Amino acid sequence: MQDQTVGRRRGRASGGGAARRAERTATGVETARFITRNIPDYEVLTEEAIETIEWNAETVLEEIGVNFVNNPAALERWRQAGADVSGERVRIPRGLARKLIATAPGEFVQHARNPERSVTIGGRNLVLAPVYGPPFVRDLDGGRRYATIQDFRNFVKLGHMSKWLHHSGGTVCEPTDVAVNKRHLDMIEAHATLTDKPFMGSVTEPGRARDSVEMCELIFGKEFVQGNCVLTSLININSPLTFDDTMMGALEVYAAAGQACIVSPFIVGGAMAPVTVAGTLTQVLAESLAGCAYTQLVRPGAPVIMGAFVTSIDMNSGAPTFGTPEAAQITYGAGQLARRLGLPYRSAGAFNGAKLPDAQAAYETANTLQTGLLSGVNFMLHACGWLEGGLVSSYEKFVMDADQLGALHRMAAGVSADETAQAMDAIREVGPGGHYLGCAHTQANFKSAFWRSEVFDYKPYETWSEDGGQDTATLASARVRKLLDAYTPPPIDPGIAESLRDYVARKKDAEPDAFA
Amino acid sequence: MQDQTVGRRRGRASGGGAARRAERTATGVETARFITRNIPDYEVLTEEAIETIEWNAETVLEEIGVNFVNNPAALERWRQAGADVSGERVRIPRGLARKLIATAPGEFVQHARNPERSVTIGGRNLVLAPVYGPPFVRDLDGGRRYATIQDFRNFVKLGHMSKWLHHSGGTVCEPTDVAVNKRHLDMIEAHATLTDKPFMGSVTEPGRARDSVEMCELIFGKEFVQGNCVLTSLININSPLTFDDTMMGALEVYAAAGQACIVSPFIVGGAMAPVTVAGTLTQVLAESLAGCAYTQLVRPGAPVIMGAFVTSIDMNSGAPTFGTPEAAQITYGAGQLARRLGLPYRSAGAFNGAKLPDAQAAYETANTLQTGLLSGVNFMLHACGWLEGGLVSSYEKFVMDADQLGALHRMAAGVSADETAQAMDAIREVGPGGHYLGCAHTQANFKSAFWRSEVFDYKPYETWSEDGGQDTATLASARVRKLLDAYTPPPIDPGIAESLRDYVARKKDAEPDAFA
Repeated sequence: MQDQTVGRRRGRASGGGAARRAERTATGVETARFITRNIPDYEVLTEEAIETIEWNAETVLEEIGVNFVNNPAALERWRQAGADVSGERVRIPRGLARKLIATAPGEFVQHARNPERSVTIGGRNLVLAPVYGPPFVRDLDGGRRYATIQDFRNFVKLGHMSKWLHHSGGTVCEPTDVAVNKRHLDMIEAHATLTDKPFMGSVTEPGRARDSVEMCELIFGKEFVQGNCVLTSLININSPLTFDDTMMGALEVYAAAGQACIVSPFIVGGAMAPVTVAGTLTQVLAESLAGCAYTQLVRPGAPVIMGAFVTSIDMNSGAPTFGTPEAAQITYGAGQLARRLGLPYRSAGAFNGAKLPDAQAAYETANTLQTGLLSGVNFMLHACGWLEGGLVSSYEKFVMDADQLGALHRMAAGVSADETAQAMDAIREVGPGGHYLGCAHTQANFKSAFWRSEVFDYKPYETWSEDGGQDTATLASARVRKLLDAYTPPPIDPGIAESLRDYVARKKDAEPDAFA
Repeated sequence: MQDQTVGRRRGRASGGGAARRAERTATGVETARFITRNIPDYEVLTEEAIETIEWNAETVLEEIGVNFVNNPAALERWRQAGADVSGERVRIPRGLARKLIATAPGEFVQHARNPERSVTIGGRNLVLAPVYGPPFVRDLDGGRRYATIQDFRNFVKLGHMSKWLHHSGGTVCEPTDVAVNKRHLDMIEAHATLTDKPFMGSVTEPGRARDSVEMCELIFGKEFVQGNCVLTSLININSPLTFDDTMMGALEVYAAAGQACIVSPFIVGGAMAPVTVAGTLTQVLAESLAGCAYTQLVRPGAPVIMGAFVTSIDMNSGAPTFGTPEAAQITYGAGQLARRLGLPYRSAGAFNGAKLPDAQAAYETANTLQTGLLSGVNFMLHACGWLEGGLVSSYEKFVMDADQLGALHRMAAGVSADETAQAMDAIREVGPGGHYLGCAHTQANFKSAFWRSEVFDYKPYETWSEDGGQDTATLASARVRKLLDAYTPPPIDPGIAESLRDYVARKKDAEPDAFA
């Protein structure tokens, strides 16, 4: 319903929507619908283990509590809700946080300016969004370097061109050449104009969160934004058990505006949480309970996503490690806990600690993507492009990972056992010793039968060798160029584009540049 | 019990077993126990889909049947068992094959000459064995070339040195410089002397299967071999629905000797089976039912493993593709079918179609290894070293994959929720805003807390860069050299070693070289 409203509004304003859609199809920009899983979730925790962890998390909240730093309003909200507040420490009676969370929706729509690209977050769904946060970029030609706004726009374009990405994400890289206090304006403008997929808001300062909401009001209309989710934002918890005022300030802006927060513990196990899976899950749940409940204290019913960014540590070097079995167990376990809370779940991504888009990068990434799919993740940030422990957005890895996301779609569709799928006529036709390539069933079904990579090499050895013997990163580099060359912006109401431009210019003029 | 018997026998014969074990430990050759899963299996097929596939597979056997080619004895066995035999076509009444399979063990021990390295195949266990069959090898220095017996021995040594491999496998590469009719002798001798892990027998000719059994009689004693499994062998079905006389000849030798056969449909979906998952599973099950039942006609109670080597096809190029979602669905589904048959299950491996040990190789491999672990595979052939669709045994990929197998062990151990794992004291000690690195719980548990790669790079970017900015394949190449340099042969009774040498020499002298 609301989708249609937005669609009509845009349709009226921009005129030739159908023609532009045709053009979009012509240039091959097609986006898959978000995944709706037709496969079961994988569960590593026994019922007994879950109950132990849930009991312990409530014990942590009740006995140890959490700190809300430099935030008297938050402390007052907690006090009024029945928590025991002492200094900045908030001790939450057993059961209170879970009760508060009951007002949060189990699934909700995040609207895109193109209603065909709106996504439903929660339930059996999985929405895929790109890498978030790296200060560096890397590509085959230019190596590793600080990211610029030009890189940022390139990654938004690549995301727009990627069939399997449903969401444009947020800080696809840090545009370090733009002032810290102004870059959010350029980032939101890029997401709002270079793609028509949904995107994320700024969280680095409450004022920047407000700017994000205001820019959405220019796109969707103020009234629409008040009643609908148009932004998802990443609110990291300062683990262990600490909620700082910057992140909480942003959370308060978004929750009050009815916009979605991903409340995420940010944990390198062994450093910000215990060295055990069960201990880490206990802390993750305690922090999530407190943070998600807090959104409901700000505005009951505000959409909130339980996040878990958790990885292990190399105890030799102190480096965070990715794609490890412990990280997988935590991801599976946190999914079980989120479902019992009735909240959408954010975790996993194309995680790896490799310096190059090489085999390490791919092993670690594939391990994590598989885990993300089977653990019931609803919102997967960092689903493509992540390199070097999140320090680098990699152009090549972006398209390599985005390609693998296609495989997740197919896997999630599950196994049909209808008459066509049973293929008994084919087995009868071919018989012992025969060949299926030419049979009627194969001819009728082969086009959609198998997922196919658009990056990997499927040539015979000799052909591959004659073609230069290129590795995956080199093939991916060519695909990056091809996609960026083929990019055409999606249609946008010229009035909206201009109002965004004006807003950014006005805001940028209003204060001096800050670079820290 | 039987393990101990072998142990005593060896102990008496070889004298200083303890001293040699100490030496082995000193050189760091340690082998993990085979995996016993403490995590659930993942199931993609609904109960209804399973029943449809099972019904259809029996329909295939009853109405279409299977061919046993050039094998009158097999046809006679089937006739006496109650099948409808017409020409070479065997039509098996609904339920007969499943009934025959009931005499096969659900799990069994394959003995190694070092009883500490015997493995239990079936049940909740997972035994890992290396790549099988490639005519080529590849390494960073020498590129791609035909495999030799020297390569073969190198791969056996690498397998021996790999902590996470439980099994030495079979044709780790084809020693193409040895006559076709004699290379099995060199291969068995290498497995029997260069490692003390269990290994596989030859299947390329029934006589070579007999040689394999006879060589094991020299190692274990004739009486022991008659009553115990000391060989596992790979019997491929010529899909669709065809059992050729060479493979069946080998199967008959092994089954009659009470040795284990892996009866494996060999399917590129769309070519040797329908283009659908359910259709392929139907054919896999029909072929497995017929092939596994046949082992029980040869010798009731003979150990047999239901295999499924199934991958998808690139319909553009006709190339087999690996690590795809359809292959994963088939692997999960076949696991469900195997468990309902009560048979050990063989599938998955380090599958990929890449030409180099690069990102494609790793994505596809990781996808398949994860699937193999969660699908309940009991015997994973090709668990490391596979490259280029099985045409190449890669030195670097061997150690890269073998490293990942360590992660499978950890994942399979499941999640503890005992008091140490709960870590409530640690959470209390550290509190909000603290740090876990120095706390008592971390100090007590960090050594065993997290799995750690022995191949991947965990250094800070600057250090990695100063060290030459090496990619994973380069790091793996160094590890290959390190392992081969550190290799020392496991102790062996000199009398056994000599009897094997004599057997090989005698057999080689007995007939001229054949090269096809």
